[in-house]
Amino acid sequence: MGSYLQRLQYRVLVRPEDMPPSQDGFEVIGTFNPGATVLDGSVVLLVRVAERPICRPGWVGLPRWTHGRLVTDWLPQDQVKWIDPRAVRLRSTGQVRLTFASHLRTCRSADGLSVDRWDESRFIPELPWEEYGVEDPRITWLDDRFWITYVAVSRFGVATALASTKDFRSYERHGIIFAPENKDVVLLPERIRGRFVAVHRPALATRLGPPGMWLAWSEDLKSWGQHEPLQWAREAWESARTGAGPPPLRTESGWLLLYHGVTPGKRPDDVGQYRAGALLLSHENPGRILRRTCHPILAPELPCEQQGFVPDVVFPTGLVDRGATLLVYYGAADTSTAVVEWSRSELEGALEAVESAPSNKGEPA
Amino acid sequence: MGSYLQRLQYRVLVRPEDMPPSQDGFEVIGTFNPGATVLDGSVVLLVRVAERPICRPGWVGLPRWTHGRLVTDWLPQDQVKWIDPRAVRLRSTGQVRLTFASHLRTCRSADGLSVDRWDESRFIPELPWEEYGVEDPRITWLDDRFWITYVAVSRFGVATALASTKDFRSYERHGIIFAPENKDVVLLPERIRGRFVAVHRPALATRLGPPGMWLAWSEDLKSWGQHEPLQWAREAWESARTGAGPPPLRTESGWLLLYHGVTPGKRPDDVGQYRAGALLLSHENPGRILRRTCHPILAPELPCEQQGFVPDVVFPTGLVDRGATLLVYYGAADTSTAVVEWSRSELEGALEAVESAPSNKGEPA
Repeated sequence: MGSYLQRLQYRVLVRPEDMPPSQDGFEVIGTFNPGATVLDGSVVLLVRVAERPICRPGWVGLPRWTHGRLVTDWLPQDQVKWIDPRAVRLRSTGQVRLTFASHLRTCRSADGLSVDRWDESRFIPELPWEEYGVEDPRITWLDDRFWITYVAVSRFGVATALASTKDFRSYERHGIIFAPENKDVVLLPERIRGRFVAVHRPALATRLGPPGMWLAWSEDLKSWGQHEPLQWAREAWESARTGAGPPPLRTESGWLLLYHGVTPGKRPDDVGQYRAGALLLSHENPGRILRRTCHPILAPELPCEQQGFVPDVVFPTGLVDRGATLLVYYGAADTSTAVVEWSRSELEGALEAVESAPSNKGEPA
Repeated sequence: MGSYLQRLQYRVLVRPEDMPPSQDGFEVIGTFNPGATVLDGSVVLLVRVAERPICRPGWVGLPRWTHGRLVTDWLPQDQVKWIDPRAVRLRSTGQVRLTFASHLRTCRSADGLSVDRWDESRFIPELPWEEYGVEDPRITWLDDRFWITYVAVSRFGVATALASTKDFRSYERHGIIFAPENKDVVLLPERIRGRFVAVHRPALATRLGPPGMWLAWSEDLKSWGQHEPLQWAREAWESARTGAGPPPLRTESGWLLLYHGVTPGKRPDDVGQYRAGALLLSHENPGRILRRTCHPILAPELPCEQQGFVPDVVFPTGLVDRGATLLVYYGAADTSTAVVEWSRSELEGALEAVESAPSNKGEPA
């Protein structure tokens, strides 16, 4: 498998066809980008479930959540222009709509490599800024509960919100923590000098530079400030975009942060290839990058990664520490949930020293 | 002057030709979008000064600040594509660069209608995320000092940062408070239920809806959370974009918030027409809009507003309360600083009741 990390084990855990839709008239097109953690000795996955209305010839159905239910705005096909598989533009107003709407469901796995059971409870859109879906959860254990950062999509844009739970059965919402457009937000699992730390990824409306990851600090997880650029694309394979994967993992030598990098697409409707890399951040100052993988360590190689709703995507969002190995949970082609097991020492060996601290700041290509 | 508010008095206060450049080889092209406040009985204006390198035929000079000085990256003309007067795109990388770089200078006015003197001190870019300029300051008196929200532009995007001062001679920086892309951030001049409130305007990379204003809350002015949509375009004249003007003013009936609204341009290089409107927000819950001006109250009517670096722009950024009248300081055509005096009762008469509270949330066009 090329120069990528060896896949010690590999499984597709959840496929859309495994999942019943929320309501009649809809179909599940994606079960992907799962948050992952461990509770009572089992792996818990919080899986993004994307649904769309079943096709009516000549019409485009644009789903949204309202009052706890999925509804569809149907438009004649000639009134929309497709941007890519994920989105259309309304010819009347120029507004962009998603072609699917997502919510989150929970499953448990004793061995981390197969799904034992699905919970009844779901995390569904409830607020105006969640109407087009809740997406891509990341889970961090902090202060006696699980904190979930998730993407909230609506006519107001793509923001990141915070929720917490003790059991993945009931959730408390804590509002939007990063205003639009911001996604791929992960929390460090420990306070640094008394404060919480997040990695986030603002999207740039003006292309003053390549989109990259930022750091922010908080006293209470709900209000964030002291934003600073952390990482930007340095390599061709990540030049279109980078964003955090799972929450950082404490290792002996620093915080291990997996991230995705995107190669620019060749056509306007081609979203590019999503691969994964890793950074090692300083324990005391997570704004300092100590080591990084110059080459991608995971790439779309298997059919379920190369073909699907959005082809050529691996998108890691969950990480479970097994000591000598790591289980990495990821979305494959915006369609399925998969897991890969890596040797920790092989991953650590792929991390190359970053030349000098100053080059970490202010000097993107 | 049409249906706009009557201009009781009107003056152009600062023109680019009044201002010497920072360094040899540069010219001042804009002195505009001033923050305004009152100190020791005088109006203080913190004026954005935009400079660009003096033209070399066949070359495009792109300025940036580094180590306290303006430097220029010179590119052959055929290596860039003009987007509009403000920005070019590098053909090599697709990166966008501003054609000017801004810093801030302070002047004082006893009567508010003429400039008495300029201070020596300047507020210049010092940090990596300020390299392309510091722009569009808004000033709020809170807790015994002036707080300045300003736009920080760099290869990392367009963010809003916070600084404070007691005298406009020395400044303390408090970091980026709203990550890219976010500008037009204003602070309420009082705590609400013990917390600070900001109005901000995230820019959307994906056009899921029209860009509008949001509210956020803070315990310390430096970390912000609980972001909620506040206002979005409802009228044609503001349909391309809205953003806060000066910090809100407490009035008997609520918080008066002036804002700018932009009409879409007719060509790709036409940034549209910037006009101004006003909102009245609930004292206790500034997320609730009580009244609004359906029609613009200030528009580019005079030559200096219709012609300049960016034609057809009025952009209010400062407000001084004179009791029966208001002095509104604004940028004209991204070129000059002007002031207009309005009757407060005429402005209040232009505010129309908003039908019902629920329509304030979740129902943009």
